[in-house]
Amino acid sequence: MLLTVTLNTALDITYHVPALIPHASHRVDSVTERAGGKGLNVARVLSALGHETVVTGFAGGTTGEVLRGLLAGLPPTDALVPVAGTTRRTIAVVDAASGDTTQLNEPGPAISADEWDAFLTAYGKLLADADAVALCGSLPPGVPVGAYAQLVKQARGAGVPVLLDTSGEPLRRGIAARPDLVKPNADELAQLTGSREPQRATRDARRRGAHAVVASLGAEGMLAASPEGTWQALPPARFEGNPTGAGDSAVAGLLSGLVEGLPWPDRLARAVALSAATVLAPAAGEFDREAYEDLLPQVLVTEHTPPA
Amino acid sequence: MLLTVTLNTALDITYHVPALIPHASHRVDSVTERAGGKGLNVARVLSALGHETVVTGFAGGTTGEVLRGLLAGLPPTDALVPVAGTTRRTIAVVDAASGDTTQLNEPGPAISADEWDAFLTAYGKLLADADAVALCGSLPPGVPVGAYAQLVKQARGAGVPVLLDTSGEPLRRGIAARPDLVKPNADELAQLTGSREPQRATRDARRRGAHAVVASLGAEGMLAASPEGTWQALPPARFEGNPTGAGDSAVAGLLSGLVEGLPWPDRLARAVALSAATVLAPAAGEFDREAYEDLLPQVLVTEHTPPA
Repeated sequence: MLLTVTLNTALDITYHVPALIPHASHRVDSVTERAGGKGLNVARVLSALGHETVVTGFAGGTTGEVLRGLLAGLPPTDALVPVAGTTRRTIAVVDAASGDTTQLNEPGPAISADEWDAFLTAYGKLLADADAVALCGSLPPGVPVGAYAQLVKQARGAGVPVLLDTSGEPLRRGIAARPDLVKPNADELAQLTGSREPQRATRDARRRGAHAVVASLGAEGMLAASPEGTWQALPPARFEGNPTGAGDSAVAGLLSGLVEGLPWPDRLARAVALSAATVLAPAAGEFDREAYEDLLPQVLVTEHTPPA
Repeated sequence: MLLTVTLNTALDITYHVPALIPHASHRVDSVTERAGGKGLNVARVLSALGHETVVTGFAGGTTGEVLRGLLAGLPPTDALVPVAGTTRRTIAVVDAASGDTTQLNEPGPAISADEWDAFLTAYGKLLADADAVALCGSLPPGVPVGAYAQLVKQARGAGVPVLLDTSGEPLRRGIAARPDLVKPNADELAQLTGSREPQRATRDARRRGAHAVVASLGAEGMLAASPEGTWQALPPARFEGNPTGAGDSAVAGLLSGLVEGLPWPDRLARAVALSAATVLAPAAGEFDREAYEDLLPQVLVTEHTPPA
């Protein structure tokens, strides 16, 4: 099975309002809730692609109950670790007219040292059955900043390929533990390496410890730098829509391609097509399967010549 | 005891952010939750003034559980009626720099006909022990728009003085059932009567059925029109702060003054002082007791000569 880790799960709440006006009062037209956090989004796409998938991380309090209720009975399988604190909410306020979204993210519950130890034990057991693992998103308060380095090492020790998708200091520490793959976006990559030139920055990220680096560059598609070579994958067009979850769908494309043994160009094409099909889907974080199948053969992948 | 009715209770959530920027992503610095809805705010102030107070209305779902948890063990007494739907949330996003608030209010759970009947039965029983009742706030979906007219009639039938604080069509219908007191703000009064001239509008509201009308006019204080006369009460100064709950504190001042048999000028002074002390309190919907006691003797109440 495939394992995804979401240490800072979230109850994702979407509000539709006619238009968000600062310092005014708004009556919300519609309220929707989904189980969120990057690893949960990745897991749903992996399940939709036909992979047996398990989610772990933390959940607690009344919002944690609601989140687990939303996961119940559907793939992926819930292996979240209970905590005393309350799972955070995220509020996405969508303007009805423009479709533009204003995002409010709570920080998440404080995780105790005992809860972190309980997670490490659960994670170790889950790794025994995992074909690959994705470590996704921000760290809740109380989790050590080197958490991902520890989880990467544990996966490597168990012989399980590990993908890391985070940002800031947790990425900087995690990458030094030599994950098989990191998937930063342009901002995360620039923050890590100090460079906004993708070729240079992906090479730098590999030198920092990642076996392979796939940078997601929005409309410029994705750039993969790996021991096997360097490829750029471009979507066939620029798509208008809701980019929420597009990066998570790309992670699912890369992880599934890795365990299926696909060559790099096919992995990238899948990641780019899934990402675009997520932007095109009406609900945030879902992907449009028809659009995905339509786009997949249209993704243009080119190999870069190695630098002199 | 004093009874307050909040048909559309709410879990009031406050987020502090550096500044709310439409279509940007925000990390919330702090999250606080309180049991909300106008009647709950009124009841807390009544309790703080030393009155035995009971709250009723609806609560359901996980947010209803959280709300009841926040009420537990403290006055006022919880006599909320359980419903299958989920109690709404309200989100107040406070800009740290300016203190300005952006409000997002969910619509509330759908109430079934059976749930409404269960409420009417519970309300009838509670009226038997009530010295006065305040009917407060908006109606959740499914509750008949004439709900407050029905509740006013039931209170009058039981000989219990009834205060109505709502807006729009529920106010229009409710006022025709002849409540003892309504407390519209300037906008609600203008919507009801078509007039922005307070003297004219309060007279019109009385003709529509209210025994007495107290209009809350912000910095212009309050205007009371009653069979005993017409008074204007002015705060000693203009106060900067968070106006959330100021109107609810005024309702508590008026209701407590009514059951204590205070003359109109004293009721109005109490309402204006409580209202100002709520604006001055650091937490939304609380009042600053020291400020209240300081302001009370400073409120200027003048009697208007009757219209020719």
